[in-house]
Amino acid sequence: MSIDSAKKTVVFTPSGKRGRFAIGVSLLTCAHALGVDLDSICGGRGICGRCRVGIGEGELAKYGIISTADHLEPVTPPEKLYAAREGLGRGMRLACHARICGDIVVDVPPESQIHRQIVRKRAEARSIDIDPVIRLYFVEVAKPDMASPSGDFERLAEALETQWDIFLGGIDYGVLCTLQDVLREGEWRVTVALWKGSQIVRLWPGFHDVAYGIAIDVGSTTIAAHLCDLASGDVLGSCGLMNPQIRFGEDLMSRVSYAMLNGGGGAELRASVRQGVNGAITSAAAEAGVAAEDILSLSIVGNPVMHHILLGLDSVPLGTAPFALGTASALDLRAGEIGIDSVKTNACIYVLPCIAGHVGADTAAMVLSEGPHLEENICLLIDVGTNAEIVLGNKDRLLAASSPTGPAFEGAQISHGQRAAPGAIERVRIDRQTLEPRFKIIGSDLWSDEAGFARGSAKTGVTGICGSGIIEAVAEMYLAGILSADGVVDGAQGQKTRRIVSRGRTHGFILHEGRITITITQSDVRAIQLAKAALYAGARLLMDKLGVEQVDKIVLAGAFGSTIDARYAMVLGMIPDCDPEAVSSAGNAAGTGAWIALLNQGARAEIEEVVKSIEKIETALEPRFQEHFIAAMAIPHQSAPFARLRKFVDLPAKKTAAVGKPGRRGRTRRV
Amino acid sequence: MSIDSAKKTVVFTPSGKRGRFAIGVSLLTCAHALGVDLDSICGGRGICGRCRVGIGEGELAKYGIISTADHLEPVTPPEKLYAAREGLGRGMRLACHARICGDIVVDVPPESQIHRQIVRKRAEARSIDIDPVIRLYFVEVAKPDMASPSGDFERLAEALETQWDIFLGGIDYGVLCTLQDVLREGEWRVTVALWKGSQIVRLWPGFHDVAYGIAIDVGSTTIAAHLCDLASGDVLGSCGLMNPQIRFGEDLMSRVSYAMLNGGGGAELRASVRQGVNGAITSAAAEAGVAAEDILSLSIVGNPVMHHILLGLDSVPLGTAPFALGTASALDLRAGEIGIDSVKTNACIYVLPCIAGHVGADTAAMVLSEGPHLEENICLLIDVGTNAEIVLGNKDRLLAASSPTGPAFEGAQISHGQRAAPGAIERVRIDRQTLEPRFKIIGSDLWSDEAGFARGSAKTGVTGICGSGIIEAVAEMYLAGILSADGVVDGAQGQKTRRIVSRGRTHGFILHEGRITITITQSDVRAIQLAKAALYAGARLLMDKLGVEQVDKIVLAGAFGSTIDARYAMVLGMIPDCDPEAVSSAGNAAGTGAWIALLNQGARAEIEEVVKSIEKIETALEPRFQEHFIAAMAIPHQSAPFARLRKFVDLPAKKTAAVGKPGRRGRTRRV
Repeated sequence: MSIDSAKKTVVFTPSGKRGRFAIGVSLLTCAHALGVDLDSICGGRGICGRCRVGIGEGELAKYGIISTADHLEPVTPPEKLYAAREGLGRGMRLACHARICGDIVVDVPPESQIHRQIVRKRAEARSIDIDPVIRLYFVEVAKPDMASPSGDFERLAEALETQWDIFLGGIDYGVLCTLQDVLREGEWRVTVALWKGSQIVRLWPGFHDVAYGIAIDVGSTTIAAHLCDLASGDVLGSCGLMNPQIRFGEDLMSRVSYAMLNGGGGAELRASVRQGVNGAITSAAAEAGVAAEDILSLSIVGNPVMHHILLGLDSVPLGTAPFALGTASALDLRAGEIGIDSVKTNACIYVLPCIAGHVGADTAAMVLSEGPHLEENICLLIDVGTNAEIVLGNKDRLLAASSPTGPAFEGAQISHGQRAAPGAIERVRIDRQTLEPRFKIIGSDLWSDEAGFARGSAKTGVTGICGSGIIEAVAEMYLAGILSADGVVDGAQGQKTRRIVSRGRTHGFILHEGRITITITQSDVRAIQLAKAALYAGARLLMDKLGVEQVDKIVLAGAFGSTIDARYAMVLGMIPDCDPEAVSSAGNAAGTGAWIALLNQGARAEIEEVVKSIEKIETALEPRFQEHFIAAMAIPHQSAPFARLRKFVDLPAKKTAAVGKPGRRGRTRRV
Repeated sequence: MSIDSAKKTVVFTPSGKRGRFAIGVSLLTCAHALGVDLDSICGGRGICGRCRVGIGEGELAKYGIISTADHLEPVTPPEKLYAAREGLGRGMRLACHARICGDIVVDVPPESQIHRQIVRKRAEARSIDIDPVIRLYFVEVAKPDMASPSGDFERLAEALETQWDIFLGGIDYGVLCTLQDVLREGEWRVTVALWKGSQIVRLWPGFHDVAYGIAIDVGSTTIAAHLCDLASGDVLGSCGLMNPQIRFGEDLMSRVSYAMLNGGGGAELRASVRQGVNGAITSAAAEAGVAAEDILSLSIVGNPVMHHILLGLDSVPLGTAPFALGTASALDLRAGEIGIDSVKTNACIYVLPCIAGHVGADTAAMVLSEGPHLEENICLLIDVGTNAEIVLGNKDRLLAASSPTGPAFEGAQISHGQRAAPGAIERVRIDRQTLEPRFKIIGSDLWSDEAGFARGSAKTGVTGICGSGIIEAVAEMYLAGILSADGVVDGAQGQKTRRIVSRGRTHGFILHEGRITITITQSDVRAIQLAKAALYAGARLLMDKLGVEQVDKIVLAGAFGSTIDARYAMVLGMIPDCDPEAVSSAGNAAGTGAWIALLNQGARAEIEEVVKSIEKIETALEPRFQEHFIAAMAIPHQSAPFARLRKFVDLPAKKTAAVGKPGRRGRTRRV
């Protein structure tokens, strides 16, 4: 019998990696030798259960070997112990203890892979590999020995090197101060949390296998937090809190003004937003049933003003030209440095980079989430808030700008406008003949002309109209002939409906009469025209810069972007010409980007690199922005693709003539 | 005229570096091109004056060129301005503005060299190059520009790169939070303090050219601090404060016991020593007339117990075998992390490495100061305190141990013992015939039998006897025949002098009668015998390990080491046989080592490397230590080189026979 015949073939699926190993070698050893992505926290001691594998029986056809459970030595006591304690699953083995005695096909289930992939719900969104910046390692540390004296820390470093091939860079000072006690409490067995594979940031006596992270999007209106298990990526708790800064002003610039006009205003704003972030963390942790002190890693995004206020930088320079950021770089911080005291003071914070004075870390996060830099297609990403942040391009070139839409899309500056909240009108239809409107409010599934609407909405009543509602109202008014292409409410329509009301020489349209009467006034229409023209002009300016006449895909991000109906946005001429099928809503893309940066450290380097390469366009410096803006005031804009929209919205035939042909699909691109 | 003839020869002294440069080139440019060590903080703007140079006239003979002040273009307005403001010195020029127009010899004075050398007072001590871990750089930062938006921090980083070739690694978060204001206050000109050439740790508007550092030795008894100018190395202020921990016990182990027996004792001890360190910093800063917040860099040493207590580590494990350190590694910390609040919270602290559980960072600092690892000769370094730390070896091999001398050398456990302080007897002579003693006390230059002694010492009186005094007293008692070689006070001598007193079966010798009567009792002699035997046995054990019979040089460090007379130490058999000329006192070598690590960052890497290579010997584990200890109890030890000592101390002829021959000078060394 040759020596080689004592070896057996081991094949791992799904990777297909294979090799021949001596009888008695553990599957974990085989996996490491072959570079198979198989997890372990305890380093093969049968404690963590992360290396669970299944036996791929009857795989003869594919791999040319017969594999059966008998080709492993019998289940070992540690595996029985683990199975009794945690449950192991039928036919599953711990790779660290299962030793081969015959040819075998081993199935590594997704949950046993270190770098398992998260499949996102949105089919078009990129998938994410789990590779968090913090990972746990269980080690057995040598006891002190007088004969060869060395420090507890040095013996821990040595254990990491010999047991995990890790060369320790350092240890947080506060953790070092607990090291002696923890080592003795754990009887010289401890679990360490390593940041970037190098720095010890947490320490537990004995075996510990949970580490949490939280992704936070600090918006002007809402602070959203998602708490995840860092090993699985699973979101265990979420929280969306009103930003307590709201009391200093709805929009960002009023908050910057507050800081500017009130000596200590900056400190007040800072304390307020930090209180909000701490509240969001605490709530998300409570929902997840997790102690906030077990949160080791935070990833934070926000617009430039929120970013600066939260971090304790001066936001005042952002309020006036040249809109200089204190720093645009991504930051690695500790919670204590920025007053995040709901978690431990040394919890590791990553703040995504900002792009420019008006284009913040939230936009960078949107880019990370949507990945235009990975695409061949020309993508237009729009996050509509008080300003609209716009990113255009593909893998070859990306441009970004902020367009001053003002807060009309958020319901501000609109007679009965309000934020999207229960009771707000969000959908509007107007009968082309009778001009009778019907609508839906947030919190009710019924249209206002359906039976039961009054009862269904009794809790809130009709409280106002939010951004998506006002957009549909204006578009429908136009489609129904109540509004001219240049945005004038036609008083003559008063002959057809009592809903036309006049104030001086201008007119309005009553959408709803009730406890509150909701009227779309001429000035509401003007506010929407200004906002949508600014948005369109910004996108158009970037298209000019990129040298394209049309975009391949549009992603609308943010709370507002999720609620607006893309068809109406195109009817109004808010967004450029695009196949309506290629317009999607990304929800809170900024929050998603923060979540990606939380779970994948490579994504951090990626977005830092991408942000550096993005060309920043300052609309205020571009004469063409003004030209586009003026041209975009009309409804619909001349290039709007009405022909294609026809299948979505009921367009009166007479309007069609007024609509230009879709722009020629072509682009020239600088490389 | 050839192109080359338009170039002129420039020679820099003392380096002798030379080159040919075009007419009109500045001397600073020439220096940089030639790699001449010429300082500059302002980057050639004529502000800092660090590049002052002199013209070496008439250097024809040595360099073969005629050099005159006329070979430089006339003094420029910035130089005149600097001369008027700061003074420039006769014939001195600013190299950044002085441009060549003829062959010239340029003299770079020591104060204009970046890496100038400090010459130490002790001829045998190594010299130190100034190369502190923190250096200052003046930069002009681009103003923000809307057309190419970037953050203030990114523009500062760019300025450092273009103006100083420095690739910035990071910025302390607290400093980042001040960056926007400081840049605007300084009108986009700022001075940055860079740690390790990479991390911004301080920032000033405009030009700033002072940075201070402080070296601190945290001893059990005294906390010593030396405040230096980081650029010149000059000590501007010093302070030696009593360690306030003294109230928890004189010696280290009683403090460890306090921590062990009192739950919160560790915290009390920590607060106490931190208060002491802060007090020493504040005092040294006051003496130097420097604001403590201008101290950017601290270097700290201490014995293992002080090290652990100050740093907030648990000192209790140091009190019992296996004497495990929390960490032995050198540490880079920030002041705020360890409660040093007399300086700014981000002041950079370097803590030297410890060697073993009983051999601390103070011993490492002693090694750095005395440099045995650089020598061919076998050096024996001894720091005597409560324990004696002993280092033996040379560039090939170093050994270290701690020997349990107990606190007798510090005056504890001695009937009238006290710490070295005014009023303490420090020198003793006993007449060989009359047995009449005479002595000197600290604070008086007169011997006790000289006229005016009583008046001169009236302020304190004779208060007790300190370590060096007790050593001389015991040695003189032996030399005068009052003490036998095995340490018994000879009651029969009472026939010659009324100074012999008896208590039961033991006797004592009255050294002084006055307000306090000072007697050397039999138990005092035993305490000194035990202490000196432990010290000798430790040194001897290391000599065995190294395989040498004799050492080439002995350095006695520490307060006690500075005051003892090496001759008497050898009479007693405290230290091994050595040419008395080769025995020196290093003063506070630990403090000097801290000062070296403060001023030269290379010294930090050096001592970390050396400490790793030192072989640690645990005396408690060595049977031979006990043998040496017992053998060393007698006075004098058999190998003591009495023959050579004869020229120093007056030895009665009859004693000489009892003394063995000096050990054979030879060694075998492992390489």
